[in-house]
Amino acid sequence: MNNFQFCSPTEFVFGRGTENEAGIYVKKHGGTKVLLHYGGGSAVRSGLIDRVKQSLAASGIGVVELGGVKPNPRDTLVYQGIELCRKEGVDFILAVGGGSSIDSSKAIAMGVPYAGDFWDFYCGKAAIQAALPVGTVLTIAAAGSEGSGDSVVTREADGLKRGTGSDLIRPRFSILNPELTCTLPAYQTACGATDIMAHVFERYFTNTQEVEITDRLCEAVLLTMVKETPRVIAQPDLYEARANIMWAGTVAHTNLVGVGREQDWNSHGIEHELSALYDCAHGAGLAVIMPAWMEFVYQHDVMRFAQIAVRLWGCQMNFAHPDVTALEGIRCFRRFLHSIGMPVNFAELGAKEEDIPKLVEKFGIGDGKTGGFVHLSAADIAEIYRIAAHAAL
Amino acid sequence: MNNFQFCSPTEFVFGRGTENEAGIYVKKHGGTKVLLHYGGGSAVRSGLIDRVKQSLAASGIGVVELGGVKPNPRDTLVYQGIELCRKEGVDFILAVGGGSSIDSSKAIAMGVPYAGDFWDFYCGKAAIQAALPVGTVLTIAAAGSEGSGDSVVTREADGLKRGTGSDLIRPRFSILNPELTCTLPAYQTACGATDIMAHVFERYFTNTQEVEITDRLCEAVLLTMVKETPRVIAQPDLYEARANIMWAGTVAHTNLVGVGREQDWNSHGIEHELSALYDCAHGAGLAVIMPAWMEFVYQHDVMRFAQIAVRLWGCQMNFAHPDVTALEGIRCFRRFLHSIGMPVNFAELGAKEEDIPKLVEKFGIGDGKTGGFVHLSAADIAEIYRIAAHAAL
Repeated sequence: MNNFQFCSPTEFVFGRGTENEAGIYVKKHGGTKVLLHYGGGSAVRSGLIDRVKQSLAASGIGVVELGGVKPNPRDTLVYQGIELCRKEGVDFILAVGGGSSIDSSKAIAMGVPYAGDFWDFYCGKAAIQAALPVGTVLTIAAAGSEGSGDSVVTREADGLKRGTGSDLIRPRFSILNPELTCTLPAYQTACGATDIMAHVFERYFTNTQEVEITDRLCEAVLLTMVKETPRVIAQPDLYEARANIMWAGTVAHTNLVGVGREQDWNSHGIEHELSALYDCAHGAGLAVIMPAWMEFVYQHDVMRFAQIAVRLWGCQMNFAHPDVTALEGIRCFRRFLHSIGMPVNFAELGAKEEDIPKLVEKFGIGDGKTGGFVHLSAADIAEIYRIAAHAAL
Repeated sequence: MNNFQFCSPTEFVFGRGTENEAGIYVKKHGGTKVLLHYGGGSAVRSGLIDRVKQSLAASGIGVVELGGVKPNPRDTLVYQGIELCRKEGVDFILAVGGGSSIDSSKAIAMGVPYAGDFWDFYCGKAAIQAALPVGTVLTIAAAGSEGSGDSVVTREADGLKRGTGSDLIRPRFSILNPELTCTLPAYQTACGATDIMAHVFERYFTNTQEVEITDRLCEAVLLTMVKETPRVIAQPDLYEARANIMWAGTVAHTNLVGVGREQDWNSHGIEHELSALYDCAHGAGLAVIMPAWMEFVYQHDVMRFAQIAVRLWGCQMNFAHPDVTALEGIRCFRRFLHSIGMPVNFAELGAKEEDIPKLVEKFGIGDGKTGGFVHLSAADIAEIYRIAAHAAL
């Protein structure tokens, strides 16, 4: 196990009706005037935004609203948010929504006290030194942004999708009410579940040896997802299954399941170019990319792939031919993703094979290599896109 | 899943050589003059205390020392510590050691700013309103106190052992260097492992339904312990196995594996009377009590006991007779504890059957009942002591 630091100070408030405590927690964490930042549509129609506003009013918290966050959140709205917060003297950002609203909120939070362009933090020109405090009311189990110090934003002008991170943008509190996810369409639910599983796999495939505790914690999240996701696809309002998925999604991304080990994250990078180019859902892109990545790299550590095949998918271990078990595990993953309604290949995702050179170029590693588990070149990444393009059950 | 709040803000610093960063972390968390609180013996002889003092000096932190903490830490030393801190103007308590040093440190931390008797917090007369900040350098994987807001202290005059808790006494940081545990004798190592497993079982056996994610997280810790403990009993200086056990012990007791569900904790309460009366190791007492408790209560939820038998011990599920599987799992647990050198019954522990009435009386529930999974009466507790007294492999 490698040396590590781990600190997850976010206060999680979990369960039915907890959005009505938003005001109490903003106040507890020092907010007096919030930017209420959300997507719109269902959060407004369902009455959620009204309930949160009532809760804020009851705690004497001032409110400025900025809706309109889109999936793959844009820099353009972030600039608007920063300006609005400065003008209105906002001292706390409250995100209501999923990963997009939260990531957009984090971007605004770091942008307000920064004299330069907030994009500096995303393109590696500057490190975050200060940020307004952020809180969240989560409405979809997926990104894990409610418990992480990460944020991903897309630059509208050229579709560049980039991430940044700092403990300064970890939410002070996150309100997780599984009821709010009970009305999510099956497709969005499945995209979220895929994202959660991908967050674990990015950490699971490691060259660090003897990390049994984190292996087992990873498997705990994955086993839960494999059990609970089909239940909510079949019956969307099954509170108990939604609750298990929601908490699993948070645990998957505080980094508890990844400490002390090298991590990979190539599948996320490879996928980001798909969702940036086609504006498809991140989870759907991952469903196509992640099994393709696995097929490309599994020979690097056949026993690790056999381990997950046995422990997660219940495959029989083929002791004479572990590679058979390893490949069977990857097939199980793809079949599982298909069973919950996720795309299997480029055609089902709406991506085009002829765009592969463009995707690789945008990925932008040139002659370099990237990734923690297997170092991939641009040619390797092109091959993974090709495997993904042609994948079948 | 029940509604819950979860917050584990402790900063964990894990790995080789990390005790040399103690000064940096005390300073980061605002300390200028620490009480260095420890047991003595091996921590001094090994040079650990000197290394920590060098680190504190390098960060310009003043030091007052108080050694002499014993297992099952006593109120008498706590009173001394409180007085010393007040006299010396200490503003931070740094525990070096295991659960006893940490729990004693927490007691001092809450006692310093309190005008009354610190024991008020342990006997339920007062709630903790303030405490000095606490940090830890852990030397044994066992109690989990390095990541919890709990503390257990024994009143020397009458051997009364009582606990209290508050987020105010959660360590600000905990330094976890597995190397420091590589010289622990096998018996202490096994006692610690038993305590870690017990912390999980107290949460695992619940009446709350549909808590798959916490079930799986519990099993992750238990599976790790079952794999790694025999390895360090056989080869004490096996760093990687020590590292997995150390982090598993922390994860077991931040309450991450227990959120959203009713918990039990009767085995701990029943054991506390044994270690208070005989001054035996808490883990050794648990090794005798916990399987006895399981045998007494398993019929309350046979399927839950069958689940752990299958998932943890790899027992075959007897679908026609799940109770057979449930009992086989308990037998596996007792055989495992025996295999790592733990006592199986009263005789091996050094306890006496004729003391059972005294133990039950000290437990002190009178005509009431106690426990989350199965509500136990005084007669039930006496029966569990009797099962423990006569247990065999």
